[in-house]
Amino acid sequence: MNLLVTGTIGIDTIETPAGEHREGVLGGSCAYFAAAASHYGPVRLVAAVGDDFPDEHRGTLAKFPNIDASGLEVRAGSKTFRWGGKYRQNMDERETLFTELGVLEEAPPPIPEAFADSDCVFLANSHPAVQMDFLDRLPNASFVVADTMDLWINTARDDLTRLLGRVTGLVLNYEEAEQFTGYRNPVTAGQKMLAQGPEFVVIKKGEHGAILVHRDGLSALPAYPTEHVVDPTGAGDTFAGGMMAQIAKTGDTSNDGIRRAMAHGTIIASFTIETFSLDRLAAITPAQIEERYRAFAAMLKLD
Amino acid sequence: MNLLVTGTIGIDTIETPAGEHREGVLGGSCAYFAAAASHYGPVRLVAAVGDDFPDEHRGTLAKFPNIDASGLEVRAGSKTFRWGGKYRQNMDERETLFTELGVLEEAPPPIPEAFADSDCVFLANSHPAVQMDFLDRLPNASFVVADTMDLWINTARDDLTRLLGRVTGLVLNYEEAEQFTGYRNPVTAGQKMLAQGPEFVVIKKGEHGAILVHRDGLSALPAYPTEHVVDPTGAGDTFAGGMMAQIAKTGDTSNDGIRRAMAHGTIIASFTIETFSLDRLAAITPAQIEERYRAFAAMLKLD
Repeated sequence: MNLLVTGTIGIDTIETPAGEHREGVLGGSCAYFAAAASHYGPVRLVAAVGDDFPDEHRGTLAKFPNIDASGLEVRAGSKTFRWGGKYRQNMDERETLFTELGVLEEAPPPIPEAFADSDCVFLANSHPAVQMDFLDRLPNASFVVADTMDLWINTARDDLTRLLGRVTGLVLNYEEAEQFTGYRNPVTAGQKMLAQGPEFVVIKKGEHGAILVHRDGLSALPAYPTEHVVDPTGAGDTFAGGMMAQIAKTGDTSNDGIRRAMAHGTIIASFTIETFSLDRLAAITPAQIEERYRAFAAMLKLD
Repeated sequence: MNLLVTGTIGIDTIETPAGEHREGVLGGSCAYFAAAASHYGPVRLVAAVGDDFPDEHRGTLAKFPNIDASGLEVRAGSKTFRWGGKYRQNMDERETLFTELGVLEEAPPPIPEAFADSDCVFLANSHPAVQMDFLDRLPNASFVVADTMDLWINTARDDLTRLLGRVTGLVLNYEEAEQFTGYRNPVTAGQKMLAQGPEFVVIKKGEHGAILVHRDGLSALPAYPTEHVVDPTGAGDTFAGGMMAQIAKTGDTSNDGIRRAMAHGTIIASFTIETFSLDRLAAITPAQIEERYRAFAAMLKLD
């Protein structure tokens, strides 16, 4: 399948509990997703940045040969999205220090004509109305997965509900699943969301792994256990990137295909958090990814 | 191997978030452990109760043919341990409403001579000095696993450290691992505990599964995903019961043997929480356990 991702490319400032601090690093859901996906196959990126977007960050994206960045619009006179976050001692909780929406407050970027045959689409976290606008412009999208966040659950619930009726799958955090449905049990929360349209929901639990609630069955995976957690930013987006790229590669959109693809997402996400920004994703080799995937499969093998 | 468990037999009062309430039900770490273990093989129980222990509860224990309760001492003039707990909306957090120690404040029970050849031993949660006293009286114990809790980490840290030097493995909750070591990352916390003696540490995360930190490797398992959570009391003890009984049955005390045994613990624990007390454990059939185990293995199968 032809994989396309829409979302944000941002400039991040990150503080970690260990006191480490990085300013102005490349971030955004689309950047993380595409960098992860590119390790499994080609990925088309649609996003907008301002004319303040540093050449250095453009160069970083270009280091990933499988990313087709021809859908990256550099908008003159606009500002790139900027986000600052600080992690608490529990690396799964973070505080937003500042948000400068910039280009995200303007019209969404155009989709290049060459991307019109994209059938496997990931709508990274954005206002659900914007996510639907992208869908309107992707007539061949047949396997569509959206991410969302607490902000849209609170401020755009009706749009989010409409979006649910148009996607194949939804990816969201554990707390967000409860917030959206009122049910804390992730299986129950997932079932409630399935009733609104999608075939499956993936509930992300950070260091505790993820749960797949699919029309055809339930499954759960742990995270890859690791001591090397430097910066969890982008873990969820890279999880989705690995998962979607594996689905695009195999074409297996069944419950079992998604479940297996989630394991690839888990592994690529475990690399992301070992450094700031895309540093680790830019450096890992196929052999390193394969080795960790094999170790993960072995620790879960029961028969 | 010959499996023996020491710990408490108690009379519990439980309140759940759904407003359900049970008074005077059979509980205690030893009861839960033994009931779970008995589904995998024989288990010897060493515990003390007072003369207020109801015949009904004795009858419940007798329903499990694999439990050898000849080590259950009924102490005249003493009171059975009683505990009251209330679960918060998050079923993984609970509040202790009352504790009546009763017989737990007195000398530990004797170990029947017929149990002297016990080599696979589980020291369920108790004061670490009491756990060591049991060990002193079990000269053939070669595979010894202890459970502990926040209370002993706070009040008996030196004894707990000594105990660590005498056991093969330690089982404790996620929060307790951080409390004991000062490290939130469970892998790091586990490594710190290994440095104090044991070959492995199992960190239990309730609905998020468990992590095995073993000298010979790391692994993680999710919990069995389920909507049917009525009362989580005893989940950890039954997890340990299934795990230890499987190890006793196979004799495989390697990293891989423990890892696989944890999956059996996960499955039996998923039944425990479906009802109050031992009700579900008393009713399940081998076929039901096998079916759920197969489903769990299938959802984790990656190659």
